[in-house]
Order: sequence, then C-alpha cells, then structure tokens
Amino acid sequence: PRSKLPDVGTTIFTVIGQLAAQYDAVNLSQGAPNFAPDSALIEAAAVAMRSGHNQYAPMAGIDRLREAVAEKVERLYGARYDAAREVTVVASASEGLYATISALVHPGDEVIYFEPSFDSYAPIVRLQGATPVAIKLSPHDFSIDWDAVGAVITPRTRMIIVNTPHNPSATIFDEHDIVRLRALIEDTPIVVLSDEVYEHVVFDGALHHSMARHPALAERSVVVSSFGKTHHVTGWRVGYCLAPARLMAEIRKVHQFMMFSADTPMQYALADALAEPGNYLGLAAFYARKRDLLAQALAPSRFELLPSRGSFFMLARFRSFSDERDSDFVQRLIRDVGVATIPLSAFYTDGTDTGVIRLSFSKDDTTLLDGARRLCAV
Amino acid sequence: PRSKLPDVGTTIFTVIGQLAAQYDAVNLSQGAPNFAPDSALIEAAAVAMRSGHNQYAPMAGIDRLREAVAEKVERLYGARYDAAREVTVVASASEGLYATISALVHPGDEVIYFEPSFDSYAPIVRLQGATPVAIKLSPHDFSIDWDAVGAVITPRTRMIIVNTPHNPSATIFDEHDIVRLRALIEDTPIVVLSDEVYEHVVFDGALHHSMARHPALAERSVVVSSFGKTHHVTGWRVGYCLAPARLMAEIRKVHQFMMFSADTPMQYALADALAEPGNYLGLAAFYARKRDLLAQALAPSRFELLPSRGSFFMLARFRSFSDERDSDFVQRLIRDVGVATIPLSAFYTDGTDTGVIRLSFSKDDTTLLDGARRLCAV
Ligand SMILES: CSCCC(=O)C(=O)O
Ligand SMILES: CSCCC(=O)C(=O)O
Repeated sequence: PRSKLPDVGTTIFTVIGQLAAQYDAVNLSQGAPNFAPDSALIEAAAVAMRSGHNQYAPMAGIDRLREAVAEKVERLYGARYDAAREVTVVASASEGLYATISALVHPGDEVIYFEPSFDSYAPIVRLQGATPVAIKLSPHDFSIDWDAVGAVITPRTRMIIVNTPHNPSATIFDEHDIVRLRALIEDTPIVVLSDEVYEHVVFDGALHHSMARHPALAERSVVVSSFGKTHHVTGWRVGYCLAPARLMAEIRKVHQFMMFSADTPMQYALADALAEPGNYLGLAAFYARKRDLLAQALAPSRFELLPSRGSFFMLARFRSFSDERDSDFVQRLIRDVGVATIPLSAFYTDGTDTGVIRLSFSKDDTTLLDGARRLCAV
Repeated sequence: PRSKLPDVGTTIFTVIGQLAAQYDAVNLSQGAPNFAPDSALIEAAAVAMRSGHNQYAPMAGIDRLREAVAEKVERLYGARYDAAREVTVVASASEGLYATISALVHPGDEVIYFEPSFDSYAPIVRLQGATPVAIKLSPHDFSIDWDAVGAVITPRTRMIIVNTPHNPSATIFDEHDIVRLRALIEDTPIVVLSDEVYEHVVFDGALHHSMARHPALAERSVVVSSFGKTHHVTGWRVGYCLAPARLMAEIRKVHQFMMFSADTPMQYALADALAEPGNYLGLAAFYARKRDLLAQALAPSRFELLPSRGSFFMLARFRSFSDERDSDFVQRLIRDVGVATIPLSAFYTDGTDTGVIRLSFSKDDTTLLDGARRLCAV
C-alpha cells in the first residue's frame, strides 16, 4: 500500500549526521552539545537508579518535576500553572509536539506554521489528515508578516504553531508579534502551539516572550519545552508541556498511549537540576559567548553572518560567492572542507533555496574554532 | 472543539496506581517489577553517562544495540533481520506500537485486534481515522476463534494486532494459531503487528511463537518488544521493532518525528546487558517461580485461578462468590482488603464484565505473599 508520507525521506539531521561521521567532519549541524553536562546531573541520575527509580513513572511525570516546572514558570513568566493538571512531563519536546498535534488537530483542519521550520511540524499535521499552511518568513530578516497570517485564517484554522527563539533563523518574538498574534486569534477557536525549547537562550538582554507570559494567549496555548536543550542532555529524552486543563486533558489522553511515561531516573535528576535556577539563568550568557566566539572566528570568511538573537543557531549566507544549491554546497563543505552544517533549504517544504546554511554553536570552543578556521578557507 | 477520543479517560494503570498509593495497598496491578534490576545494568548506564553518551542517539538506535537485537533474534528464532534497515530502537514498546500503527494504518482502514486487550491499541487505531474491529477471545480459555477472524476480514482490513504472551489473559500462541493466521492473511495485503513484550516469559517449556520465527508471517509482520520488561527497567523507555525493510522505512518516517531517538545512555547499558544471553534466557524460570508462589499462596482463597502460560499476569475469577462488577470489586479490594489489581472489564471497550481480576506477579516475594494473604481473607 501507499505511504502516508510519500514525499518525506530520512530527517535531515540523520542524513547530515551520517555524512559528517563518514567524512570525519567538524560537526556544526545538529543543535546538540558535544560537551558534557554538569557531572552533578549525571551523578543524580546514577543515585536515582541506585535508589530504585527504574520503573514506570506516573503517566504525567513525577510530582517533584512537575512542581519544579510550575515554580520556574511562575518565577520567570509570572504564570500560574497547576502542577497536577496543567503541566505534563513528556518524553522529549518532539513527543510533546506530536502528542499535542495528535490530540488537538482533527482531519480537515488547517494548521498555520512558518517556514523555514523545524522539519517535524508539517508531517505531524499531515498524519492527522489535516492541512499544514506554510507562511514564509521574510527572506531578509525572517520576520513574520502578520497580515499574511490573517489572510490565510479560515473557519477551519485550528492551530498556529509558533517557535521562539526560532529554529533555524535565530530570531525571537518581540512584543509586536505578541500583540498581532493575540489580535488575530481573539474570538476564534484557534490554539497556539508554542515550541519554546530554546526559552533560556535569548541573547543581549532581550525578553523571552513565552506564551505563558501573556494571559490572553496562555489560556489558548500549549507551550512545549525541553530539558535536553537546557541541561545539555539532548539524549535523555525529557521535556514538558504547559496548557490549560481543558487542553491538557486531551493531550494526556494521547501521551498515555504514545509513551505512557518519560524516563524515570532522568526525571529525578532533572528535578534536582531545575531546583537550582543558576542552571538555566546562566544559559543565555553561556551561549552568547559561544555565538560571539564563532562570529568572531568567521569574520575573515566570505560568509555573511545573519544576526542570532536566540537559540543555538546562526545563519550564514554564501550566495554572494557561490550559486550552488544549499544542499550541494553543504555536501561539498562536508567532503572538501570538513565541516558539517544544515542547508537552510531543508527547512522549507518547497525546497526554497536562498544560499544560506545553518551553523550550530552548541559545541565546545575547540570545535567552534576548528570549524570556523575551515570555513574561512572556503 | 470536540475531543478526538471522547470516550477515553485516564488509562486504567494510572487510575489504579493512584488508588493503590492513596490506600497504601499491596500493589499487584501494573506489569512493572517492584524490585531492582541487576546492579551491573545500572552501573553500565552510569558509565555511559560519564563517558559522554548524553546527546541524541542515532534516530534508529545505536549500532551496538541494533546489532545485539539482530543477533538475539537470529539465535532464538532463526530469523535474519538486517540491523541497519530492519531493526529500530524505539523509546518504549508503547512508542513502537504507536509509530507502527501511525505509519501503516490509513483513514478508513480496519484493524482487527482481540479483546480483552492492552488499552492502547484501539485508541491509536481510532486516532488514524481507522476502525478497530474487536474479536472477543473465548470467555472460558481466552483462545482465538479464527473462523470469527476470517468472517470480519474485508478488503479494508489493513492490520491484525496479535499479542503473545497475551496481556491480560496470560495465554500464548500455539502452532495452531500460527497456521490459522498464516492461512488467513495469505494473498491479502494485511500486515501483522505483533506485540511480544513478554517474549522471554513463556512458561513450562513452551515455545514462544514470535512472528519472526515463521518466515511467511515475518515478511509481513512488525514485531514490537521491550527492554523494560526483560531487564526489569520499565521506566527506562527503550524497546525495539523488527520489520521487513519496506515496512520499517515507513515506521522510521514516523518515529523520527515522534521521538527522534530513544534515551542514549540507557541504549549503551542495554547493549551490554543483551550481550549476556543469561539475562533473558533465565527470565521464564524466574517468573515461573513467582507465578507458582502466588498460585500456591492463593490456593486457600475463594478465587478460581486461571492458567498462566506466559507474561507477568494471572487471572482470578471471583464470580462464584460475588456478583459485583469487576471495577466495583477491585475498588473494594483496594479500600477494604488493601490489594490493588486490575479489573478485567477495563480491557474490553464495551465493558464486558465477567467477574475476573488480573494479578501481576512481577513483584518481590514478600509483596506476593502479603498480597495473597490479604486476598485469602476475602
Ligand atoms: C531532533 S533534532 C532537534 C532540533 C535540533 O537539534 C536541530 O534543529 O538541530
Ligand atoms: C504502560 S502499562 C504497560 C503494560 C503493563 O504494565 C500492564 O498491563 O500492567
């Protein structure tokens, strides 16, 4: 029988990761640290395992972790979520996105999202028998044209997926975006799915505009975040969702069958880590330094670097010196220069090609400098 | 807007687990050990974390674990699966079931499964816009009426979900079931989804009839198994799927967006554990002893115990001495007797009520004896 995703191949992160390994390239592709997490976090997981926390966790997550999330969200965003009914620990932000879309999007619905975009949104929507409606971000500064969003809203629009800080463009929502989004969905049944996995990585003193911060949006939003991105353990597969109880009840119905529960010892370890605000409050400065290090090291290169206001990423334009397609250019970089990056065109479903690559600076300094040195030789 | 699962509540395992905790009952409900895994397994996970295995694993799982699975499956079932393309590590058997059904079942399709049944199958099918078609197992011995299966097969039948050893009835497939199943699906496009999470827990010298063992079935089957059930770590969330490459390609398309990858350090630890065949070859004897201990301790009780040929479970009939509904009886046991079990009616979508409870013997001996002593007082 036919495929449910006939035009989907292997995710770009796997394709590039395999090429990077094959050519032993300096890997600036995926948004995953190549350095160790805090050893206290690792030892906390070991203690949890030795203390007998190896069996199914409660379906919605262990109490301590849900409560620690609710406290953090109140401290940072002034929002009160009921840890019992409005916070759910999921087995990665990926699962949170999938469970939310599966629970809330019906066949025939339309879901608006922005391209370039993380590659899972549109396929998950299509798997629900719903229609993903892509709005392109400005090719210049990757800002959102909210008039264009307003123009595609129909009575079938069920959800708008937003992502701030934005992967791959490294832009962030400003107050202006919040005002426009709120106005557009007022008096509609539209739900906002907000991917905020880089919530703690917002640079230059800017505010992270979590949907949780804005009550009129929070009451109709699902916020998804990641412990992996915040605590340098992307392989531990723990994230969380925030949502008003009426939406969360539906999300849990799906989550309980999709995963039942997230990894138990990791939840205990992360509850300890989250109790130390320093673990997330320092993250923006930590990554700003890496961003600046990479930018500085790339200054002599031929690439035009685009501003990175948040996330682990920076875009670099090569169109001024090469007419190659993004994906050809990236393959050549891996083979001939020994640096792995992601072609921006991979984040567009229509293959829009603008001569841009995405660099991840969630890497140790040596790797960043080594990668930059090689890119300067292009 | 309306719910996509309007008649689904919180999974029975969470409901009973919460009641058990509330009343401090001896917990014989969920199929999860209350004892520790091998300490070598825990230390292997700690070593993996300290060795830097904390970031995203490859989407399909780490090579060593896929290869160890392929070797085990060849040794036990004589089946050759290509570790690169036909074995995928998933983030729990639950995720494996969900990803498989999402990838292969289209809207309008029909999926045959057997009741009583694990509670996720039917909702996952319904979330695809497909129709779950329940065939009831014999109320006497929980055998499959294959003529009844033949009678409901239509051109829209896309999948048959089987489960051996069977949760909750503790029956297993015999050669006869394999012969009938094979004959029924020959010359049809029907795929078998085989939930074999208790594959190593088959008692009394019987053979586990994995679909992998039977080439004519294997070529059109997806086999799902669990490391949690085998290595006493149900909270670690790692399982695996086996399938011919053409089916696996579709399953991976969904898995990559549902979870991206399973927990990394746990995969390293489990690869070590799987390399020791003793870790799974001894499991049947280990659980047979627990089954017998529980049965013996319950011999003086008023319950009629049904035979358990595999899995962590045993059914116990109370209809001869009480006309209560299964769920009322179970609630009373928790409150008044201090023992938590699962009502068999929870495994039927139509609430079929036959005066039976399910006991889990995946518990330490003290818990089994304590639970049995209390049940003898009923
Ligand atoms: C599973 S990939 C998650 C996102 C990410 O790391 C990336 O965009 O590189
Ligand atoms: C997530 S519950 C898994 C199955 C099980 O443990 C049970 O049936 O009790």
